[in-house]
Amino acid sequence: MRRATLALGALCASGLASAQTSAVQSPATGSSVTVFGIADVALGYGSGSIASKTQLYSGGNSASRLGFRGIEDLGGGMAAGFWLEAGLNIDDGTTGATNVNNQPNGSANGLAFNRRSTVSLMDFWGELRLGRDFTAQYRNRNDVDPFSVNGVGTNQAQVGTIGGPTATRASNMVAYFLPPNLGGFFGEVQYYMGENPKPSFNEDDGNGYSARVGYANGPFAIAVAGARTQFARSGSTGDIDTVNLGASWDFQLVKLMGGYYRDKVKSLPEVTGTGYLVGAIVPVFGYDQIKVSWSSYGTDAPGDPTARKWAFGYVYNFSRRTAAYATYARVSNSGGSAVAVNGGITDANRSASGYDLGLKLSF
Amino acid sequence: MRRATLALGALCASGLASAQTSAVQSPATGSSVTVFGIADVALGYGSGSIASKTQLYSGGNSASRLGFRGIEDLGGGMAAGFWLEAGLNIDDGTTGATNVNNQPNGSANGLAFNRRSTVSLMDFWGELRLGRDFTAQYRNRNDVDPFSVNGVGTNQAQVGTIGGPTATRASNMVAYFLPPNLGGFFGEVQYYMGENPKPSFNEDDGNGYSARVGYANGPFAIAVAGARTQFARSGSTGDIDTVNLGASWDFQLVKLMGGYYRDKVKSLPEVTGTGYLVGAIVPVFGYDQIKVSWSSYGTDAPGDPTARKWAFGYVYNFSRRTAAYATYARVSNSGGSAVAVNGGITDANRSASGYDLGLKLSF
Amino acid sequence: MRRATLALGALCASGLASAQTSAVQSPATGSSVTVFGIADVALGYGSGSIASKTQLYSGGNSASRLGFRGIEDLGGGMAAGFWLEAGLNIDDGTTGATNVNNQPNGSANGLAFNRRSTVSLMDFWGELRLGRDFTAQYRNRNDVDPFSVNGVGTNQAQVGTIGGPTATRASNMVAYFLPPNLGGFFGEVQYYMGENPKPSFNEDDGNGYSARVGYANGPFAIAVAGARTQFARSGSTGDIDTVNLGASWDFQLVKLMGGYYRDKVKSLPEVTGTGYLVGAIVPVFGYDQIKVSWSSYGTDAPGDPTARKWAFGYVYNFSRRTAAYATYARVSNSGGSAVAVNGGITDANRSASGYDLGLKLSF
Repeated sequence: MRRATLALGALCASGLASAQTSAVQSPATGSSVTVFGIADVALGYGSGSIASKTQLYSGGNSASRLGFRGIEDLGGGMAAGFWLEAGLNIDDGTTGATNVNNQPNGSANGLAFNRRSTVSLMDFWGELRLGRDFTAQYRNRNDVDPFSVNGVGTNQAQVGTIGGPTATRASNMVAYFLPPNLGGFFGEVQYYMGENPKPSFNEDDGNGYSARVGYANGPFAIAVAGARTQFARSGSTGDIDTVNLGASWDFQLVKLMGGYYRDKVKSLPEVTGTGYLVGAIVPVFGYDQIKVSWSSYGTDAPGDPTARKWAFGYVYNFSRRTAAYATYARVSNSGGSAVAVNGGITDANRSASGYDLGLKLSF
Repeated sequence: MRRATLALGALCASGLASAQTSAVQSPATGSSVTVFGIADVALGYGSGSIASKTQLYSGGNSASRLGFRGIEDLGGGMAAGFWLEAGLNIDDGTTGATNVNNQPNGSANGLAFNRRSTVSLMDFWGELRLGRDFTAQYRNRNDVDPFSVNGVGTNQAQVGTIGGPTATRASNMVAYFLPPNLGGFFGEVQYYMGENPKPSFNEDDGNGYSARVGYANGPFAIAVAGARTQFARSGSTGDIDTVNLGASWDFQLVKLMGGYYRDKVKSLPEVTGTGYLVGAIVPVFGYDQIKVSWSSYGTDAPGDPTARKWAFGYVYNFSRRTAAYATYARVSNSGGSAVAVNGGITDANRSASGYDLGLKLSF
Repeated sequence: MRRATLALGALCASGLASAQTSAVQSPATGSSVTVFGIADVALGYGSGSIASKTQLYSGGNSASRLGFRGIEDLGGGMAAGFWLEAGLNIDDGTTGATNVNNQPNGSANGLAFNRRSTVSLMDFWGELRLGRDFTAQYRNRNDVDPFSVNGVGTNQAQVGTIGGPTATRASNMVAYFLPPNLGGFFGEVQYYMGENPKPSFNEDDGNGYSARVGYANGPFAIAVAGARTQFARSGSTGDIDTVNLGASWDFQLVKLMGGYYRDKVKSLPEVTGTGYLVGAIVPVFGYDQIKVSWSSYGTDAPGDPTARKWAFGYVYNFSRRTAAYATYARVSNSGGSAVAVNGGITDANRSASGYDLGLKLSF
């Protein structure tokens, strides 16, 4: 069960190559629908200067999910696909909320295919994808994070982002992806809608566009992304502009990863958030992984509140599909920041720490 | 992939023959559970005299859904089946609400098998079906609508009906369907319950019964349906009586369809709604379809508010399972009616219009 | 379809042997995910001195559910598994609520894998199971009830228990099960968390532990369980201690079952609930079953309110997977108790009765 292909698969899962979605969809062989998912649960502890918490929680290594997807070969290189993926929590059986209009008031509970809900048409020219999906500006936070923005080790640029409701995903999206055979170049453009009536005061709230282009070939990958999501200007919100960059180099003995992030909220006054990420994944015994990352995110709000996080992890792969893992993270705060982890609570400018011990199955 | 059987299947899907439900269930071969569904998403625009809206929305051609069904052959011609079908929205990943008691206060959110949730026992004598399903009075609105009551082209008798919480589906239903081998005759009777304690003021609210009989043979099909759902009489509600009729004739070059609808709400005073539908489906190139419909629905409330709609559509079938489609609709209002489409808003007695551009996969 | 193995399977389903969960999981052959479930719907009537109710409801014989589960063989006797099981209601398509923190305020609606949501690691030493699952203190109420705590016949010790939010299931649980090959001995220990921040007034609310040990060999089975769930002491709640015992003996012509239950809530003042159960299952015609039970549950609150229930049922098995059933139950009240069944309402100290007529499919 523990095979050489494992390490490759595991690295790909957190690497830039995952932006090439066609490969992910191909296992849908014959059957018109594939049921898939991840069940990941961890014992987590978080400690801060004010309070600590012990909990069982879901998705310490990969977000738990249940999905249904399929591809139909239409002949001549053309294909159509659908993807319905719902987040869920193993610890209590709840399922994830989604956001219907890309605005703060748009949350909808109940089982929702909140992680992805798309229909695609694919051909030599690339992929047209309609529905709810990751935004382009998100991918550089995930793809160069050794912890894939999951669990206590999630990089601070993801945890702290002021990128608003569309920082990770958007609903009502029309997206185009370049085809996979461009010699390593990949890219996507997206337009998403807040679906407000026009004319109205906030008619553009939740409308936005994003794009990402990159190059991944052999051990090296790099990508840059930019996005704007529109919101009527007020003291607390306004248009949100995001620019970020991610890169990785796989030296076999170690894969190094880095990212730079900037989010600007055009409220009155404007606030700009800036983040950095440096990470490494070290393959061990051919199957397992040591993960390390340092990340920071801070804004230019009064005091320049900033949080910096170290994270260390080990993943023991029983097989391609089953893994146990342990992660430790410590966050330090300055400028009035009071970030803790895993449900702990800490005072401003104090540090906090926590750990995960988990078990994950993919199906 | 594009085969002659396609046109037949597509026509059946919106024809009266679809009332013969046994045929739909038969593909459950061997496996005890079949996962099925439709993923349909459209870019829609609606424009009225007050406001317009652009949106991505779900189900412009067929309602998006995810379902689980199965049939067990019990020997001797007998079979048992179950059907769990949940509505969902591709544009934002949300899932559909259901109604637990057939009353206006009975809405329940979260993923619900709101479209159908039934257990069946079938034999030579027909089918006993228990649970939540379409009401008999609904089928004549769907079966003779070229647009199958989906998207911007949905006929106005469906959009405007004053038939109340059970106009389309009912929960807590005991239904009986005639067997399929009666020389073209088909029929069903249903009894559904509001499940209020007795005695109580509104003990019969949401209780009701419905029936439909028809004949479908060769190119011709006709059906008549009637229903009563009970509600305590007040200024705004009361028992709701529905009678309607649908018929279609397939002339090969064109399939013509027509319907008549009447809903009476026995409030104080009574209100009666009346609707008409004329439609046509023209097969094109052997695979595709041109769809046209005119429909109206109005009531005898003060001013006789009435809305009339024209709809034109084209369906391009990539295969039996995948289609692209475009629909344009225009609604005109009189007597104080202010109906718009696709989220547009219009003044009373003004017209409104809109369109869909969509992509659909069935699995 | 009606085979000798049927009776065995049906008896196991309500017998103590069901505590041996490994056997339940084994059918996951090859495929990485198994879709399974039960669709059970009944026409139910309940009558009391104040009000009666007729309804269609779900799960008269077995709780309706939809699940996804799988096991991966890791080699060397080791395996990993996941189990996601959601409750649902056939009568109206709704899905079940769960409880996220084992406290009265923890209810979460929408489709939730409320029945079970776990990840397991299994080896010669037994099974480690993490997530949401039945509590050990629940199993003696289910396993010796001829009606498996479903429908109008559900034993009164289950219906009336004052065991609080974790009486049946708990979230955030770490559990260990003994392996199945211990000569008939079985057992489990569980620790579950309320996940409150520490320090806080109610930091231990919803934390708890439970254990169960038993012996099942040939016709005889017995098990004892104990549990404590912590809650800050008040007039209405406090730590809840549960002890119970279940036993069964299968004499072939009849299987006899019995249980004793005690729940103590350490509120101010303390309240203790005590219950009894005697039941029998008689196989008929090799396939069908007659079920009888008498049960009671009462507390030492002022007046010693107590309810006693007789239940009689017949299960007609069309096959291993499909059954029709009828159940009648009558409850009598004393000491101020006013328990009714199936939605009926009765006065204190008056009796109430009701019945189910249902159809069940397992898939």
